[in-house]
Amino acid sequence: MAASRRRLRLVARPVPGGQATDRAASADRIARSAAHPGDGVAAVLGWLADLAERSWTTAERVPLEDLVGWSAVPGRGDLVHRTGRFYRIHGLDVTAPDGPVPHWRQPVIDQPEVGVLGLLAREFDGVLHFLVQAKAEPGNVNGLQISPTVQATRSNYTGAHGGRAVPYLEYFRDRERHRVIADVRQSEQGAWFHRKRNRNMVVEVREDLPVRPGFRWLTLGQLHRLLAVDDVVNMDTRTVLACLPLTGVTPDEPPDPLPTDDRFRAALRRSARAASAALSAELLSWVTDRRSLTAMQARRVPLAETHGWRWRDGRIAHHRGRFFEVVGVAVRARGREVDGWTQPMIEAVGTGVVAFLVRRVGGVLHVLVHARAEPGSVDVVELAPTVQCQPDNYLDLPAGARPPYLDEVLDAPPERVRFAATLSEEGGRFFHTRNRYLVVEVGPRGVPTHPDYRWVTVRQLDALLRHSHYLNVQARSLVACLHSLRHPNRGES
Amino acid sequence: MAASRRRLRLVARPVPGGQATDRAASADRIARSAAHPGDGVAAVLGWLADLAERSWTTAERVPLEDLVGWSAVPGRGDLVHRTGRFYRIHGLDVTAPDGPVPHWRQPVIDQPEVGVLGLLAREFDGVLHFLVQAKAEPGNVNGLQISPTVQATRSNYTGAHGGRAVPYLEYFRDRERHRVIADVRQSEQGAWFHRKRNRNMVVEVREDLPVRPGFRWLTLGQLHRLLAVDDVVNMDTRTVLACLPLTGVTPDEPPDPLPTDDRFRAALRRSARAASAALSAELLSWVTDRRSLTAMQARRVPLAETHGWRWRDGRIAHHRGRFFEVVGVAVRARGREVDGWTQPMIEAVGTGVVAFLVRRVGGVLHVLVHARAEPGSVDVVELAPTVQCQPDNYLDLPAGARPPYLDEVLDAPPERVRFAATLSEEGGRFFHTRNRYLVVEVGPRGVPTHPDYRWVTVRQLDALLRHSHYLNVQARSLVACLHSLRHPNRGES
Repeated sequence: MAASRRRLRLVARPVPGGQATDRAASADRIARSAAHPGDGVAAVLGWLADLAERSWTTAERVPLEDLVGWSAVPGRGDLVHRTGRFYRIHGLDVTAPDGPVPHWRQPVIDQPEVGVLGLLAREFDGVLHFLVQAKAEPGNVNGLQISPTVQATRSNYTGAHGGRAVPYLEYFRDRERHRVIADVRQSEQGAWFHRKRNRNMVVEVREDLPVRPGFRWLTLGQLHRLLAVDDVVNMDTRTVLACLPLTGVTPDEPPDPLPTDDRFRAALRRSARAASAALSAELLSWVTDRRSLTAMQARRVPLAETHGWRWRDGRIAHHRGRFFEVVGVAVRARGREVDGWTQPMIEAVGTGVVAFLVRRVGGVLHVLVHARAEPGSVDVVELAPTVQCQPDNYLDLPAGARPPYLDEVLDAPPERVRFAATLSEEGGRFFHTRNRYLVVEVGPRGVPTHPDYRWVTVRQLDALLRHSHYLNVQARSLVACLHSLRHPNRGES
Repeated sequence: MAASRRRLRLVARPVPGGQATDRAASADRIARSAAHPGDGVAAVLGWLADLAERSWTTAERVPLEDLVGWSAVPGRGDLVHRTGRFYRIHGLDVTAPDGPVPHWRQPVIDQPEVGVLGLLAREFDGVLHFLVQAKAEPGNVNGLQISPTVQATRSNYTGAHGGRAVPYLEYFRDRERHRVIADVRQSEQGAWFHRKRNRNMVVEVREDLPVRPGFRWLTLGQLHRLLAVDDVVNMDTRTVLACLPLTGVTPDEPPDPLPTDDRFRAALRRSARAASAALSAELLSWVTDRRSLTAMQARRVPLAETHGWRWRDGRIAHHRGRFFEVVGVAVRARGREVDGWTQPMIEAVGTGVVAFLVRRVGGVLHVLVHARAEPGSVDVVELAPTVQCQPDNYLDLPAGARPPYLDEVLDAPPERVRFAATLSEEGGRFFHTRNRYLVVEVGPRGVPTHPDYRWVTVRQLDALLRHSHYLNVQARSLVACLHSLRHPNRGES
């Protein structure tokens, strides 16, 4: 026993009790921040416009052959950086015997390192605020968008860029000293990335910290209102917001501080609080079942062997002009880690449609999620929006291949469209790639059922979001948009 | 809107409420079954012995060259079946810069298909019983062991063996008709399998069903008592038992039906019920942190290129004789799907040690889990036992590489050893591969802390077990063993 005595440094601390209560308190504080308009939306848009004038970035397409530091691996064609860092573009061979296209090949981004998307929170005058950054990314259609406090690849924080340290990253490293509100690894686009994950963190600090130029404290209410403006809240912010625990756990949590002045909002709030909404064995079993029965397999192949895709005119495109292209981009930027660079990016063809169908069942809002297999998923299937597609991609396919519920979304009368905004996908990897994000309420007649789709409550989504591998990035964006509908008078600033 | 009317088949059903209550009711019924001795342990052991006399299996090692239907892929050396089915053995290249061995290669089993481990439950006289099978597996040291109702690879149920249908499999397919108690995909040995998962299911039927020869209804109390007998309850049964929700969720659940006649058991039961034991943001953040900071990477390489391993004398072994061997096995069996076959298997060198250190903190039992990276893990790190090793493997390494807490486990005085049994790993893939499973209580002095280890309650483990990728298979076995300690008088039959 001498060995164990010698090793004795610290006696184990007891695990603190009352986490459920702690979580409810968190949810309550977050709900209070969601109800708070802060200094409004106009002020933030003005701040962004002002910054955009002073800091500038240009990003333009260049031929892949002109990229500096990037080249095709001889014999394979994979696009890699000379340092071997950042990411690479290789090919994927996908078999999906259950789907409308049973086999295909495609380019895919491989970025195995897990980055951090971190949002700092702090209470001012009893209201939680979140520190956001106005950030220029090469893929943004409009230059600056609102990003989390920290948006760092592992390359960033190990300094592979040879650039400056990432501001505020230290607050996310020292989790003992600050309070972790959310911390979960979540997937990114499974159609374009091979098993990419980022760490989504919200950390509350209880000390003063400097607000650097280009950063600003916002309430959740402000962020929610900004979500309704096209191309302002970037994808990284949306996914982190989705991981905020905005629903309660204990039956005795305090009442919702928001007034409920219409039935839709009341149903949404009930959905976020319903005691019935805990994770049921049945829901988890459905996810397990979809994962077990879906036979999609994806394996890596050389980029040069992605049949159906052609490297021509300085870019890699599908032979029918569908899906996406791999393009070169040259960036000149001030206020970024380095002053200029080139990189390959993915540019989607056309604007996609990403939509939740929602429905009131007994006064409780339910959301129709899709157990969707994507080639880049770590665990076969994640829960996706009801509709997630680029409608033009289906023009060559038989009518039966048209995505279920797409017509219900596209044909919905305006009064049933509860949310609509065009939002950008991540501007560090995707060039001018945008989706129309929609929350559409179905009529009292309902819609057909389908074994790959299921109605869930907002609280169930929230419970799943505490873990990896359940909600894909488009669904997480929509969860953030859905939460923004808790507010009355969304149009006001 | 004509399109949506045409598609209308069924109106969406509301999600049923009260799952938390449902789960507590489940937990209570399961606890009642755990308290019930059924027809005792001696009767089951007698039944096994009786069956062993009548059905026979022989499994013996043969040179890998003598396997029928299996061969090495030219140029790669990977061992594959001529049908391409079942599984294959290839090489893995592992980099683990944080570990005592920063780089190695090894053979690994690749079995991408997800099988089903299913346990049927039914209530008799108000007590849940579970239908087990006495099953011979080629790797078993003693012929028959207790297995779940269904233990089927996907090959089994698609009929790749050319054998008989798997009995009772239909109850696990029709989840609408029966009641799902647990259904979750869980990993298997991450040191020997590349990303292997099985689907762990417990399904309650409420109709009569025939009990086929070699099957028997047991209470959970019987299963728990049988866990203390060496090599009787097989690995597949143990992992399914671990996924049974044996802890409560609601504060108002009925009192534990078991008398509490000692402090250890009382602490164990409090640990399974403690309201403080919900999943905290802090616990989940710790898992996320370990996953994000661990740099282990594994990539597939040809078996012929696993440096340090030699194919010699009809088997593949490590050049120092450590770790495990890949061996050939010839099976003659009556009462199996087919009458005889050969297959490659893994045989561990020596008996391993798999142990939980446990500790009472404020009258609540806590378990020390290890965030362990294994090359075959799907998501880098899973929670493993405090100690999981084959001590001889560390003889060549520096003293600093000796696993933490191993000495605390091996040197523990007998009165602190709360559970000890030698149990077999899965007999379909592992030949005579056994571990000493231990639950060891640490003294009041405690043990040192370590950033990769953390004290958790039984209820926290139970909450994590509802999801994939959290507890590895050895930890799940130990959770089943830990639950078995709820009983007084474990020695009785």
